[in-house]
Amino acid sequence: MSESTQLKARTRSDYPFFLSYRTRWSDNDQYSHINNSIYYHYFDSVVNTYLITHCNLTPPHGEQIGLVVSSFCHFFAPLAFPSILDLGLRVSKLGKSSVAYEIGVFEEGKDQPSAVGGYTHVFVENKSRKSAAISTRTREGLERLLRPEPQMPQSKL
Amino acid sequence: MSESTQLKARTRSDYPFFLSYRTRWSDNDQYSHINNSIYYHYFDSVVNTYLITHCNLTPPHGEQIGLVVSSFCHFFAPLAFPSILDLGLRVSKLGKSSVAYEIGVFEEGKDQPSAVGGYTHVFVENKSRKSAAISTRTREGLERLLRPEPQMPQSKL
Amino acid sequence: MSESTQLKARTRSDYPFFLSYRTRWSDNDQYSHINNSIYYHYFDSVVNTYLITHCNLTPPHGEQIGLVVSSFCHFFAPLAFPSILDLGLRVSKLGKSSVAYEIGVFEEGKDQPSAVGGYTHVFVENKSRKSAAISTRTREGLERLLRPEPQMPQSKL
Amino acid sequence: MSESTQLKARTRSDYPFFLSYRTRWSDNDQYSHINNSIYYHYFDSVVNTYLITHCNLTPPHGEQIGLVVSSFCHFFAPLAFPSILDLGLRVSKLGKSSVAYEIGVFEEGKDQPSAVGGYTHVFVENKSRKSAAISTRTREGLERLLRPEPQMPQSKL
Repeated sequence: MSESTQLKARTRSDYPFFLSYRTRWSDNDQYSHINNSIYYHYFDSVVNTYLITHCNLTPPHGEQIGLVVSSFCHFFAPLAFPSILDLGLRVSKLGKSSVAYEIGVFEEGKDQPSAVGGYTHVFVENKSRKSAAISTRTREGLERLLRPEPQMPQSKL
Repeated sequence: MSESTQLKARTRSDYPFFLSYRTRWSDNDQYSHINNSIYYHYFDSVVNTYLITHCNLTPPHGEQIGLVVSSFCHFFAPLAFPSILDLGLRVSKLGKSSVAYEIGVFEEGKDQPSAVGGYTHVFVENKSRKSAAISTRTREGLERLLRPEPQMPQSKL
Repeated sequence: MSESTQLKARTRSDYPFFLSYRTRWSDNDQYSHINNSIYYHYFDSVVNTYLITHCNLTPPHGEQIGLVVSSFCHFFAPLAFPSILDLGLRVSKLGKSSVAYEIGVFEEGKDQPSAVGGYTHVFVENKSRKSAAISTRTREGLERLLRPEPQMPQSKL
Repeated sequence: MSESTQLKARTRSDYPFFLSYRTRWSDNDQYSHINNSIYYHYFDSVVNTYLITHCNLTPPHGEQIGLVVSSFCHFFAPLAFPSILDLGLRVSKLGKSSVAYEIGVFEEGKDQPSAVGGYTHVFVENKSRKSAAISTRTREGLERLLRPEPQMPQSKL
């Protein structure tokens, strides 16, 4: 099963944290659907809101910050302004100094995602920008969203 | 009384239509407050949502579209992600083919605006992009938000 | 003569500093022209580039920063991706702690502006965010772009 | 060799088409570097400029349009406003109705990329939005940028 097929099968119950966002007029590009780049703005918004409100992160001057080292998105169905979107967040991997987030983008009232993507944060000391073990309070917040991918097909039963 | 002083005195009751928007991570610039340009994205979002949901506008292929001919904003207090903002909308002038909108930007829970601005739309035929009398159904929707500025100080009593 | 009429008559020679910018795909909205909000992103870009490269400003941690207190734009002709734009910058007023910028937006190869707008910066101490007299080196850079509006026709001599 | 390691080793000579872009003030987020989402705006800009100027694409009303079905980016080094960026474009796969682009983001004067990413377009008939064989003239333009990844290590000789 390809990554795309696997992610397309997500439902709302796969995500433990949700926020709703109004789309904006300028989210639509000249094809009258939400531009692919805009989804990454959504990802940043739900991840950083969670980090600030549940993980003790205090940008821009806190001790640690998360730097994005890679990101991706699969697009399954178009969305358009002025829809309201529900963004579901899960943590798919949690390492010593890095964390992988996955975000499901759902149109209001739908249980199949229109897009699924995410990114990996490496946490660094703010001043030196050298990688650092994720602080205890941040880790506790991230662990509450941890839903690692099952490695073996049968474990899905 | 300067325009800025007059607009700073607005309260929520001056605006007949409201929508709430979550701020986004990228709304903040490197001074860690919402960048001045972003307010104009908010204006566009509340105005066009109202036009689509209450005035029968159907972008991008409807018969008429509104083109912005001038815009302005006064900034009174900084705002920052991840605040939630309430955008109040009023129509301050309504002509044969043009309409002036004013938007008050309120932080959740506050009655004094953080910023007040707006813009003027000239309605045009979509294909020719020549100015046109605002259609009846659009005008009816705009009239419901019409709160013209009193011209004489005593009328404020 | 209205402000709009006066600004529409600008030509390239009214602006002492220019930078060229490529438009981006997402600058166009669903009407297939550059969205009104995007012009304010252009303004911020040419002003801050000049402040950094010619006025000794060092965001975000320098001693002084400029906060936008009001902004405006008049739109005369549509522009669209993938055009290249020339942004002309002048200083229209220079006070003790504030400066008003005006920006002319020209399509490559044209001498009439497609839009003219600008904003007013109040300079503040970075930490306290209290207004401050503009530093000597910043003022020297701004004075080189000062083209105050003639108040009286004969002052054009 | 991981995908990230492979892409980090790219140099300018791996990309047959280049455009230079000025960064914008609002590209920087509150960590004072270019926000991860912005790179996708860059990708869209260089891809669509090439499609319009070299592949006969005429958005938004042309017969065919390209829809993004997946995108990705690896970030190797931070960039910041007001840098000028050189975006290199190659086509890494060209199918009957889809094309995969890869973009290298280089700071002016550097031969190592700061980031490498890209996306896959599926071409569709504009009205029906059903997938379609890429038109002859578009294919000819895309073939000129085709640099498929060698499948076997020895083929790198």
